[in-house]
Amino acid sequence: MIEMNSEDRLLASLIPQLPQFEPVIWGPGDDAALLYATHADEDRLLTVDQVIMGVHFTTDTPAELVAQKLVRRNISDIAAMGGIPESALLSIAIHLPEATQNEWLSRFYQGLRDESNFWHFSICGGDISVLPQAGVVASLSLHGVIPHNQSIARNTAQPGDLLFVTGEFGRSFVSGHHLHFIPALPEGQRLREYQIPSAMMDVSDGLLTDLARMCCGAKLGAQIHTDQIPRRQNATLKEALNDGEDYELLFTVPPAKVAQLHEIWSFATPLTQIGTMIETQKILDSAENVLIPGGWDPLKNNV
Amino acid sequence: MIEMNSEDRLLASLIPQLPQFEPVIWGPGDDAALLYATHADEDRLLTVDQVIMGVHFTTDTPAELVAQKLVRRNISDIAAMGGIPESALLSIAIHLPEATQNEWLSRFYQGLRDESNFWHFSICGGDISVLPQAGVVASLSLHGVIPHNQSIARNTAQPGDLLFVTGEFGRSFVSGHHLHFIPALPEGQRLREYQIPSAMMDVSDGLLTDLARMCCGAKLGAQIHTDQIPRRQNATLKEALNDGEDYELLFTVPPAKVAQLHEIWSFATPLTQIGTMIETQKILDSAENVLIPGGWDPLKNNV
Repeated sequence: MIEMNSEDRLLASLIPQLPQFEPVIWGPGDDAALLYATHADEDRLLTVDQVIMGVHFTTDTPAELVAQKLVRRNISDIAAMGGIPESALLSIAIHLPEATQNEWLSRFYQGLRDESNFWHFSICGGDISVLPQAGVVASLSLHGVIPHNQSIARNTAQPGDLLFVTGEFGRSFVSGHHLHFIPALPEGQRLREYQIPSAMMDVSDGLLTDLARMCCGAKLGAQIHTDQIPRRQNATLKEALNDGEDYELLFTVPPAKVAQLHEIWSFATPLTQIGTMIETQKILDSAENVLIPGGWDPLKNNV
Repeated sequence: MIEMNSEDRLLASLIPQLPQFEPVIWGPGDDAALLYATHADEDRLLTVDQVIMGVHFTTDTPAELVAQKLVRRNISDIAAMGGIPESALLSIAIHLPEATQNEWLSRFYQGLRDESNFWHFSICGGDISVLPQAGVVASLSLHGVIPHNQSIARNTAQPGDLLFVTGEFGRSFVSGHHLHFIPALPEGQRLREYQIPSAMMDVSDGLLTDLARMCCGAKLGAQIHTDQIPRRQNATLKEALNDGEDYELLFTVPPAKVAQLHEIWSFATPLTQIGTMIETQKILDSAENVLIPGGWDPLKNNV
């Protein structure tokens, strides 16, 4: 028999855990995964996100939860378009103590398998490599589908549209929310189905930072009711506005569609109106003070 | 005006460089890229590869060449299926001295832009984050298309099929080949078009290591003419068999199709028959000595 090298042996134990759904023809193992073409009445969505030891999780974070966070960050992006997850590719660069690395990878793959089953998408390929220093960098690219011409962009809000958020904000790291959040996928899909939002995005770098992106994209500003921002337990207003890692939906709704929004919102997920889009290219509070975004900066080590 | 944070400012200078081709509707900037569905007579291909400072390149490697290597590693996988590159997602984790990081990223994106234009695929989204230690980890997932039911797998060789390789082997690192190679994309596409190979894969981890994978997948072995392995300048046989990073095609051809293979091979790329697939699950040389793969192991730091 021809012997496998250490990578092949490891992957042979990890890969069969990953479920493969339609439209995957061949999953991991060849030069590329092979999928059937999707229907002509659908568009396709592509997104990618990574998690890094020492930035997005610590050496003590259970590997299953690292996998869960990696997958859900990406699901949150598909949710913010109103899409349906379909397939994914993983790349991981790793260098842990020899005694623990295989155990860590095994638990990480268990987490991937559970997420893959729960959200019903296939992880159909990947790449694994060594890091020169101790650490882990894992990246997942996630592909989704969406009925043709129904995607909701982040830069298409209009002046006078009302601003809504799902869930609560602040203290995501201290509360453990950043590992356990449940992205608002069915919520995003239903909003898309009824074409309620004029613009939508997910909040991952802090409410003010992401609101500023929504405003810049539309060349507008926003006036927000700071006392109405839903805060996670013990969170101050500053934390709710800036902490990041909330993974909630932020969206704008034309006044004429607000009644319909409340009619279709049969979810337990809190829904809060936090303000209004305005012509002035600033973010203001109710007293017209200018609010300056100071949220999570992905180019700085925020842990 | 609402101010952008440092990530947004950086990306605003980098992203417009990346060309977007059909079927991209929206490229970078929203929660996900949006693409038109492909045709129903096509299948889709997905692959991912990464490059890591200190493993796949050094601190002295020009950033354009790092981008070139990252893209071409992925193109080589699409070539090995006979596919056509279409769209890609980038993720990069980086921590370089403050004085040089933006310059490095700017040159890296220039390299991406040039590759994107040359191979005619869109880099339509990405994620950028800080690394806690000095270094760079860059991952690219590449999506391709291929006419329905024409993909060439790596595990479908038959006993008696002849083994062919493109190009030369060995000393990829010392010669600089690992940064400058040109993946055999048109070659792979033509082989697929005429359905010549019974199995095909790219050689990236060493000829013996990848041949062992091809054999394991088919539950076969191979007998190779070691004196006929095409060697890169000054490469020993051992280097040609084991060094890795060659990015050539390895494929098997039924004896009845060999004449047609030579007819359609109008490329300057060398084509060499190196052996035959056999029932015995071993890799043998002409004298029936067993050859043991000892190539590049992605879970070890090989630099």
